[in-house]
Amino acid sequence: MSMEDRYQKGLEVLQGIDKDSAERLTELLKDVAPDMTRLIIEFPYGDIYSRPGLDIKTRELIAIASLVTQGTAPAQLKVHIRNALNVGCQKGEVIEAIIQMSVYAGFPGALNGLFAAKEVFANYEEKGDA
Amino acid sequence: MSMEDRYQKGLEVLQGIDKDSAERLTELLKDVAPDMTRLIIEFPYGDIYSRPGLDIKTRELIAIASLVTQGTAPAQLKVHIRNALNVGCQKGEVIEAIIQMSVYAGFPGALNGLFAAKEVFANYEEKGDA
Amino acid sequence: MSMEDRYQKGLEVLQGIDKDSAERLTELLKDVAPDMTRLIIEFPYGDIYSRPGLDIKTRELIAIASLVTQGTAPAQLKVHIRNALNVGCQKGEVIEAIIQMSVYAGFPGALNGLFAAKEVFANYEEKGDA
Amino acid sequence: MSMEDRYQKGLEVLQGIDKDSAERLTELLKDVAPDMTRLIIEFPYGDIYSRPGLDIKTRELIAIASLVTQGTAPAQLKVHIRNALNVGCQKGEVIEAIIQMSVYAGFPGALNGLFAAKEVFANYEEKGDA
Amino acid sequence: MSMEDRYQKGLEVLQGIDKDSAERLTELLKDVAPDMTRLIIEFPYGDIYSRPGLDIKTRELIAIASLVTQGTAPAQLKVHIRNALNVGCQKGEVIEAIIQMSVYAGFPGALNGLFAAKEVFANYEEKGDA
Amino acid sequence: MSMEDRYQKGLEVLQGIDKDSAERLTELLKDVAPDMTRLIIEFPYGDIYSRPGLDIKTRELIAIASLVTQGTAPAQLKVHIRNALNVGCQKGEVIEAIIQMSVYAGFPGALNGLFAAKEVFANYEEKGDA
Repeated sequence: MSMEDRYQKGLEVLQGIDKDSAERLTELLKDVAPDMTRLIIEFPYGDIYSRPGLDIKTRELIAIASLVTQGTAPAQLKVHIRNALNVGCQKGEVIEAIIQMSVYAGFPGALNGLFAAKEVFANYEEKGDA
Repeated sequence: MSMEDRYQKGLEVLQGIDKDSAERLTELLKDVAPDMTRLIIEFPYGDIYSRPGLDIKTRELIAIASLVTQGTAPAQLKVHIRNALNVGCQKGEVIEAIIQMSVYAGFPGALNGLFAAKEVFANYEEKGDA
Repeated sequence: MSMEDRYQKGLEVLQGIDKDSAERLTELLKDVAPDMTRLIIEFPYGDIYSRPGLDIKTRELIAIASLVTQGTAPAQLKVHIRNALNVGCQKGEVIEAIIQMSVYAGFPGALNGLFAAKEVFANYEEKGDA
Repeated sequence: MSMEDRYQKGLEVLQGIDKDSAERLTELLKDVAPDMTRLIIEFPYGDIYSRPGLDIKTRELIAIASLVTQGTAPAQLKVHIRNALNVGCQKGEVIEAIIQMSVYAGFPGALNGLFAAKEVFANYEEKGDA
Repeated sequence: MSMEDRYQKGLEVLQGIDKDSAERLTELLKDVAPDMTRLIIEFPYGDIYSRPGLDIKTRELIAIASLVTQGTAPAQLKVHIRNALNVGCQKGEVIEAIIQMSVYAGFPGALNGLFAAKEVFANYEEKGDA
Repeated sequence: MSMEDRYQKGLEVLQGIDKDSAERLTELLKDVAPDMTRLIIEFPYGDIYSRPGLDIKTRELIAIASLVTQGTAPAQLKVHIRNALNVGCQKGEVIEAIIQMSVYAGFPGALNGLFAAKEVFANYEEKGDA
């Protein structure tokens, strides 16, 4: 496989989850670190999310679990909550995953995760995507 | 529902995942904080793991994702890797969940998660449980 | 004790600290995870804050220490700084607890804790509660 | 105040909590970073623990809360659990502070804190210090 | 060395990095914890940044690495990105240090670090400081 | 560039830092996640450490800063302390970087970093590599 193929595979996986995010990322990073967009498409999406052995819905739920546990990347948490809905997770499944984090990451982190979900769900409905 | 019922429900959920862990926990905590065993059976298992809306295999995978992200509780991570196998996760699914954490929690955390899995898998096989 | 009693005990403890927070939480979570309000009243307040063996002022100070250490839940940190004042902590005690966190969690976290306290103290005074 | 006075003040505070720890630290760090012993005596003990406004028992409990929340420094957590007993905290108060961390830092962290306390309490009793 | 000397040394080091920050900090903290400004000038700048053995450019890059890894102090991260430029780091070096954090702290943290750098660089250029 | 080239480039970079680590990693991971060795050689070493714009000594020092800040990967911290010496960092520079972390990540984390350095330095000397 050539590097070009790896980038293409990552782009397909990412666009399959959210068709606009590669473009959005390119725009956000073009002035400061344009390479980072390529690195994100290649490694997380080309190398990891494209691996067999775990379905994409579960991958989005464990990304949410990790981001709620970290508590330091609310924007990326909202992206993955939206992505989870895009790939077919039920809102109730997202909520359950976040509530479960109260056991591992504590109640404040779980609460902030729920507030993030509330915000994503509200916008998701407004756009008639649900 | 009475408090007794909540404890009973938690105990059933926990014993369904690992039949000896309540006893092990009771033994470990009896001298220092016997109430903690009850609190763990009641809240994480009676209140959270017993909730509908997310299957138990997914619950164990997101617990693993959270514990790999934290990186501070290797013993509990090993318990949940073992629990994941007990409730029917494939070893390959556990490995995929841990490898995916390299994206969110970094490579050192993912590596330590894989070493924990290696240790659990080795003992799991020795006992002929797999 | 019945479940109802446990919820009632938690509600009393929580209202004794901040009479409006249960209502505020109910409002914030009603659309996304109404059960979470009940879980928060039952476990942190009904099961933990109601335990004897540590006075409520010390409990609020260690909650502040934990939240400054995490650094990921500024809204909840502000709630607990306000709660600490409500239960009788002096402002100076809150400030000392936060400054001490520079030793364990580093200076940036301690600084952010002080900025949170500054904001809470300003509003606390405006309302004539001090 | 001269630098010498600041070091002396820190040393007195630290020796008042645990008479041997400055010597132990000196021994541990002499080959790798002898200055660090001085920095620890001067800043955490000379500048922070010596401040008025919070009693030493509360200071040790919030140190424990912070270290249980971090979960990354089990040796230092054990030192502060022992220090808490040295300055007059009851074992039950230490246990309560750790159990409360299940709300903020999650159950795995609280459990590991209890195991640390169990180990310290056992050695504390063996030596007839309690 | 007297305490006064230690404060003076810290102030010189800090003003050499950013001539206005001591004043800004004094203003921000004067109502809530005026001592904290002194503690910050004395310990991080008087005791640590003034030590020989590591040049100031490397010190600012490792401060950035630590703050990107924590992910909890975006304002302080921006201060240190600006400080890195002040002491002669190239923008490209700052970007490389942040991108490298994707390996250790994960992609979301590295991304947030890049967004912080983007904001600092934009303001830095506007002021004609670059 | 083909995928093979990327792997080769990563392997060269890694072997230039520590000639045996790829083999050691292969051995450790072969039973549990053989792909992970390839992912580590390709992304951290092939994509990141091979980038121009930051010299390898600085890259090892910021890796140390990040790992001391996390505090969750002592084995990997020791690898990078050893790697720092391999690429030409002075022991004193490593010590300074770790001591500086007391400002950002707190004293317990910095202390544990120093103990890790002490252990690496001792073994490094024994082997006559210094």
